[in-house]
Amino acid sequence: MQDERPPVAIIMGSQSDWETMKNAADTLDALGVSYEARIVSAHRTPDRMYAFAKGARDEGFQVIIAGAGGAAHLPGMVASLCPLPVFGVPVQSKSMSGLDSLYSIVQMPAGIPVGTLAIGRAGAVNAALLAARVLAIHDEDLADRLDDWISSQAAAVADYPTDDM
Amino acid sequence: MQDERPPVAIIMGSQSDWETMKNAADTLDALGVSYEARIVSAHRTPDRMYAFAKGARDEGFQVIIAGAGGAAHLPGMVASLCPLPVFGVPVQSKSMSGLDSLYSIVQMPAGIPVGTLAIGRAGAVNAALLAARVLAIHDEDLADRLDDWISSQAAAVADYPTDDM
Amino acid sequence: MQDERPPVAIIMGSQSDWETMKNAADTLDALGVSYEARIVSAHRTPDRMYAFAKGARDEGFQVIIAGAGGAAHLPGMVASLCPLPVFGVPVQSKSMSGLDSLYSIVQMPAGIPVGTLAIGRAGAVNAALLAARVLAIHDEDLADRLDDWISSQAAAVADYPTDDM
Amino acid sequence: MQDERPPVAIIMGSQSDWETMKNAADTLDALGVSYEARIVSAHRTPDRMYAFAKGARDEGFQVIIAGAGGAAHLPGMVASLCPLPVFGVPVQSKSMSGLDSLYSIVQMPAGIPVGTLAIGRAGAVNAALLAARVLAIHDEDLADRLDDWISSQAAAVADYPTDDM
Amino acid sequence: MQDERPPVAIIMGSQSDWETMKNAADTLDALGVSYEARIVSAHRTPDRMYAFAKGARDEGFQVIIAGAGGAAHLPGMVASLCPLPVFGVPVQSKSMSGLDSLYSIVQMPAGIPVGTLAIGRAGAVNAALLAARVLAIHDEDLADRLDDWISSQAAAVADYPTDDM
Amino acid sequence: MQDERPPVAIIMGSQSDWETMKNAADTLDALGVSYEARIVSAHRTPDRMYAFAKGARDEGFQVIIAGAGGAAHLPGMVASLCPLPVFGVPVQSKSMSGLDSLYSIVQMPAGIPVGTLAIGRAGAVNAALLAARVLAIHDEDLADRLDDWISSQAAAVADYPTDDM
Amino acid sequence: MQDERPPVAIIMGSQSDWETMKNAADTLDALGVSYEARIVSAHRTPDRMYAFAKGARDEGFQVIIAGAGGAAHLPGMVASLCPLPVFGVPVQSKSMSGLDSLYSIVQMPAGIPVGTLAIGRAGAVNAALLAARVLAIHDEDLADRLDDWISSQAAAVADYPTDDM
Amino acid sequence: MQDERPPVAIIMGSQSDWETMKNAADTLDALGVSYEARIVSAHRTPDRMYAFAKGARDEGFQVIIAGAGGAAHLPGMVASLCPLPVFGVPVQSKSMSGLDSLYSIVQMPAGIPVGTLAIGRAGAVNAALLAARVLAIHDEDLADRLDDWISSQAAAVADYPTDDM
Repeated sequence: MQDERPPVAIIMGSQSDWETMKNAADTLDALGVSYEARIVSAHRTPDRMYAFAKGARDEGFQVIIAGAGGAAHLPGMVASLCPLPVFGVPVQSKSMSGLDSLYSIVQMPAGIPVGTLAIGRAGAVNAALLAARVLAIHDEDLADRLDDWISSQAAAVADYPTDDM
Repeated sequence: MQDERPPVAIIMGSQSDWETMKNAADTLDALGVSYEARIVSAHRTPDRMYAFAKGARDEGFQVIIAGAGGAAHLPGMVASLCPLPVFGVPVQSKSMSGLDSLYSIVQMPAGIPVGTLAIGRAGAVNAALLAARVLAIHDEDLADRLDDWISSQAAAVADYPTDDM
Repeated sequence: MQDERPPVAIIMGSQSDWETMKNAADTLDALGVSYEARIVSAHRTPDRMYAFAKGARDEGFQVIIAGAGGAAHLPGMVASLCPLPVFGVPVQSKSMSGLDSLYSIVQMPAGIPVGTLAIGRAGAVNAALLAARVLAIHDEDLADRLDDWISSQAAAVADYPTDDM
Repeated sequence: MQDERPPVAIIMGSQSDWETMKNAADTLDALGVSYEARIVSAHRTPDRMYAFAKGARDEGFQVIIAGAGGAAHLPGMVASLCPLPVFGVPVQSKSMSGLDSLYSIVQMPAGIPVGTLAIGRAGAVNAALLAARVLAIHDEDLADRLDDWISSQAAAVADYPTDDM
Repeated sequence: MQDERPPVAIIMGSQSDWETMKNAADTLDALGVSYEARIVSAHRTPDRMYAFAKGARDEGFQVIIAGAGGAAHLPGMVASLCPLPVFGVPVQSKSMSGLDSLYSIVQMPAGIPVGTLAIGRAGAVNAALLAARVLAIHDEDLADRLDDWISSQAAAVADYPTDDM
Repeated sequence: MQDERPPVAIIMGSQSDWETMKNAADTLDALGVSYEARIVSAHRTPDRMYAFAKGARDEGFQVIIAGAGGAAHLPGMVASLCPLPVFGVPVQSKSMSGLDSLYSIVQMPAGIPVGTLAIGRAGAVNAALLAARVLAIHDEDLADRLDDWISSQAAAVADYPTDDM
Repeated sequence: MQDERPPVAIIMGSQSDWETMKNAADTLDALGVSYEARIVSAHRTPDRMYAFAKGARDEGFQVIIAGAGGAAHLPGMVASLCPLPVFGVPVQSKSMSGLDSLYSIVQMPAGIPVGTLAIGRAGAVNAALLAARVLAIHDEDLADRLDDWISSQAAAVADYPTDDM
Repeated sequence: MQDERPPVAIIMGSQSDWETMKNAADTLDALGVSYEARIVSAHRTPDRMYAFAKGARDEGFQVIIAGAGGAAHLPGMVASLCPLPVFGVPVQSKSMSGLDSLYSIVQMPAGIPVGTLAIGRAGAVNAALLAARVLAIHDEDLADRLDDWISSQAAAVADYPTDDM
C-alpha cells in the first residue's frame, strides 16, 4: 500500500504529452498506486521545474516519471536537481519519430542517472510498472498486485494467432 | 545502511562486459552499497539466466543491474522472469557503437520495464547511482551519502577551464 | 514431401504480429509445406517460450520461423534454447519502423545464430521460402515445387511497365 | 557425417573479406563439417558468379555462406540464381561500419530469401553454426557434435567476472 | 538530336517502381530524348538482367537509368555486366524510407561505378536530366534544349512566396 | 569595438569540453572580440547554471556560446533561462560521435531558440564567427575585421592541390 | 524598435517551403519585427541567390533566416556570400524526414557559420525568436517585448494536464 | 582518345580532400584520360566557384568530378551553375563518417542532377570510371581501354582466398 501522499509524480513538458503519459497514469491506477500528474516544462517554465524538482522529496514523492519530446531536457534536469529516482519517457516527435527524444534522455553523463523507457506509449506504461516495482520493494501488498498483474498478462496471451482479430 | 545480503546484483553477458560494468561496481563501493557481480549469459547460458532471474528476489536482491551488448537480451529477459526493478546498461559494440545494444534494451514492449542508461561507462556508473537512489527511499543513511556524493560532484567542477589538464 | 508432423513452427510474440507472419504461413501453404503457428512471447510468457524451445526438436519441428518487433528477443532466445535452425522476421515497429526489431534480431553474438530476413511482409514471405529451401535439401518433390515457384515468379514479371496498374 | 563432396560453400567478394570469413571456416572445422572457400565477386567477376550460382547444386553443395561488404550484392544475387539456402554475412565497411552491407543483404524483396547474420566476425561464426544446424536435421552425428559444442560453450562461461583477464 | 535507336534505357525492378520511374520518362519526353522503359528484375529475372546488360551497348543504348528499392542490386549488377554509364535511382521503400535502397546503390566498391541520384521522384527526374547532360556533350541541339529547360526552370521561380498556393 | 565587459560568454559542461571550445576562444582572439570562458554544468552544477543564466544579461554579456556533449542540455536550458542569443556547439561524444549531442541541442521546441553549429571543432570556430557577425551589426570596426578575415580565408585557398602537404 | 528598412530577410528555396517558413513570419509579426520574405533558390536561381547575398547588407538587412530542404545549400551558400548572421531552418523532407536537410545545413566547415534551428515548424518559429534576440541587443523596446513574450509563454502553461484538450 | 583540352575537371573543396580525390586522378591516368585538378571551395571561395562553374564548358571540360565533405555544397552548386554532367564524391567526414557529405550531395531537388558515388576512396575511383564511361560513348579507343581495364580487374580476382595476404 502507498502512503497518504502520492508516492509517484508524473510530469510532462506540455499538455500534448498527456496523450502518451496518461498511459502511465492508467497503469498506476490499475495497480492501485496513487500519483499526481503535472505539467512542468524545462524550457517554457524553468522556474517551475526548478521549484518542483528541489521540493519533490519534501512533498513526499518517492519516484518521478518524466515524459518529454524532441530536445527532451526535463528528465535529466529533474534528475540533476532532485535526489529521487527519475524514469524518463521519450515522447514520439514528428520529424525524428522520437529518436531525438530518446538520445536526449538516455545519453546522460556519468553522475546523473535517468532510467529510460521505450519511445511512446509502451514507455509510458513501463515507466509506471518500473515505479511500481521500485515501490514494491517495501510494499508486499503492491508486490502481490504486481505478481497478479504479471500472471494475468501471461494468461491473456492466446496460444494460437487468429484471423478474427 | 544496506541489508546483510547484498541488495544489488550486477549481471553481465560475458567477461568482456566487465570492463564496462566494473564502473557500476566501483560506484556502489564508493556509496557503501554492497552488491554481487555475476556472469549470466542470456544466449550461452539460458538455463543459468532462468534460474538466476526466478530466484533473485528470494536471494534477497532488491535491484538488478544488467549489462549486455549487440542483440542484448539479458536485461529484458531478466525483467520478464523476475519482478524486481531492472536497470539495463548497453555495452558499446564494435560495429554499431552500441546503438544495437541500446535499441535491444530500451525498446521493450508494454508490460516488461527495463530502466535503460547511457551506452558504455557512463551508463554503468549511472545504473549504480539509480540503484542507490532506489535503495535510498527507505535508507536515510544512504540518502545522506548520496546527497554528499552529489555535493562533492558539484564542488569538484572548476569555475574556469584550464589548458593544464 | 514433408513428415506427418509439421516440419515448420511459425511463432510470434503477439497476436498483432500475425498480420505480418501470416504471409509466412500463406507462402508455406502455396509450397505445400505444413506448419504450426503459435503465439509465444519471450517477455509476457517466458515459461511458455522456454518449454516450447526446449521441446521443439522432440515435437518433430525441423525449422523455426520467429517474428517479433521492438526489442525483439524471441528469435534469439529460442535459438539459444533449441538446436534447430531459427529464421527471424523483424516486425515493423511504430516509432523506429522496425530498425529496433532488425538490430535486436540480427546482431546476435557469436555462438547463437539467427538467420534474419527483411523487415515486415517481405521478411515473412522469405522466411517461409528459406525454410522450404532448407527442407528441400532432402525432399526432391519440394525442390521441384520450389523450382516451379521460382520459374512462375520470373514468368510473372512483365517485360514493360504499364500505366494501367 | 557430411557427404564426400563438401556440403558448404563459403564465398566472398574479395580476398580482403577472408579475414572475416575465415571465422566461418574455422567454426565449420571445429564442428567437422567440410566446406570449400572461394572468391566470387558479384561486381568484378559477374560471369564467375553466374556460373558458380547456377552450378552450385550440381556441384553437391547444400548450403551457401556468402560474405560481402558495402553495396553487398553477392548473397542476394546468388540466392536469385540458385535454389539452395543462402546465409549472408555483412562484412564491416570503412565509412558505414557495415550498415550499408547489412541493409544491402537483409532487405531482400519477397521472393528471394537470404538468411542474414550479424555484421563482421560474429556473423561469420554464426553463418557456420546455422549451416551446421541445417545439415544436422538429417545428420545425427553432427547434431550430437553441435549439442556438445553448445554445452561446452555454456560450460566455458565463468560464474563471476574477474579483473585478471 | 538522338540516334534512331533510343539512346536511353530506363529499367526498373518491378511494375511498382514505375510510379517513381515514369518521372524519368516524362522528363526525357520534355527534353526530346527518346528512351525505352523495361522491367528487369535482378532478383526475380536474373537471366533477363544478364542478357539485357550484356547486350545493351549492342542494342544502341548509350546511357542506362536503373531504379530499384530495398536491397537494390539492379543498378550495380547492370554496371558490372555492361560498360555504359549507369545512373541509379533509389526507390523509396516502406520500412526504411529508401535508406536501404540508397546505401545498396551508392556504396559500390571501387571498380564498378553507379552515379546515384536522390531517393524517389526527384532522383528519377534528375537521372533523366543527367542522362541528357551526358548526351548533350555531343548533341548541340540537345544542349540548347537543356539550356532552355534550365532557364525556364529559373524563370518559373516566383520572387515572393504566396499564401494562395 | 567591444564594450569594456566582455560581450561573449563561452560556457561548457566540463573541463573535457575545453579541447573543443578553446577553438571558439582562439577564433574570438583572432577577431579581437573579448570573452569569458566558464565551466557551467547543467547536470552537475544546476544551481550555478541557473545563477549564470539569470544574471548573464546584467553581467553585460550580449551573446552566449555553449558547448556540451551527450544528452547536452546546457545550451537549451541557458536559452530558456536567459533572453540573450545562445549558440550551441555539440561536442563529439564517444559512442554516438556527437549525434546525441547534436539532436539534444538542435531539436528545441518552438519558443526557445538555440542556434546550433556543427559537431566538434568546426562548430566551435563557427560559433565564434557567428557571435562576431552578431556583434558586428553595431560595430563597424569588427565588421571590417570580419571582412578582412573572410578575405584572407579566401586568399589562403590554393588554386591547385599538392601532394606535398 | 526596428529601422525603416526591414532588418530581417526570410528567404526560402521554393514556394513549397513557405508552409514552414511562414511560421517565422508570423512570429516576427507577433514581436513587431519587420521582415521581407523572398524565394531564392540556391539550385534553380543561383544568380538570384548570388545577387541577393552580395547585396543583403547594403539593402539594410541585419539578420537572414534561410529555410531549405533535402540537400539544402541555401543557408550555407548565403552565409559564404554575405557577412550577416544567417539562421538556417531545415525543412522536413519526404524520404528522410528532414535529416538530410539538417545535416546539409548544420555541418558547415570551419569558417562559414550557420546557426541552425530544429527541423520544420519549431525551427522556423525559433529562427524568428533568435533573430529577435539578436536585434534586441541594441533595441530595448524589442527586448521588453521579448521578455513579455517569454513571460506569457510561461504563464500559458497549465499546471495540470487535462483530458479535455 | 581525348581532346587537347583535358575533358575532365576534378575539383575539391580543400587541400585536405586531395588525399581522397587523387584516387580519381590516378584512375584517369591509368585509363589515359587527361584532367585538371583544382581547389574550388563553395564556402571559402564562392566567387572562384561561380567563375569556374560558369566557364567550365567554355574551357572545354566535358565532365566535372567534385569532391567535398560535411555540409558538402560544391557538387550541387556547380551542377546548378553549369550544364555539364557533375559526379559527386562524398569525402569521409570526422564526426559523421561521411553520412553528412553523402546526404548533402545525393539528395538534390528535382531539376539539378548530381551523380553521386560512394563515400571516400571507392567513390573517387568510381567517379573517374564513370567519367571515362561517359567519354567512351564517343571515343572507341577509350571504350577499348575501359574494356581492357574491366577484364584485367576480373582476371586479377583470385579463385581462392589465402591466409598469406
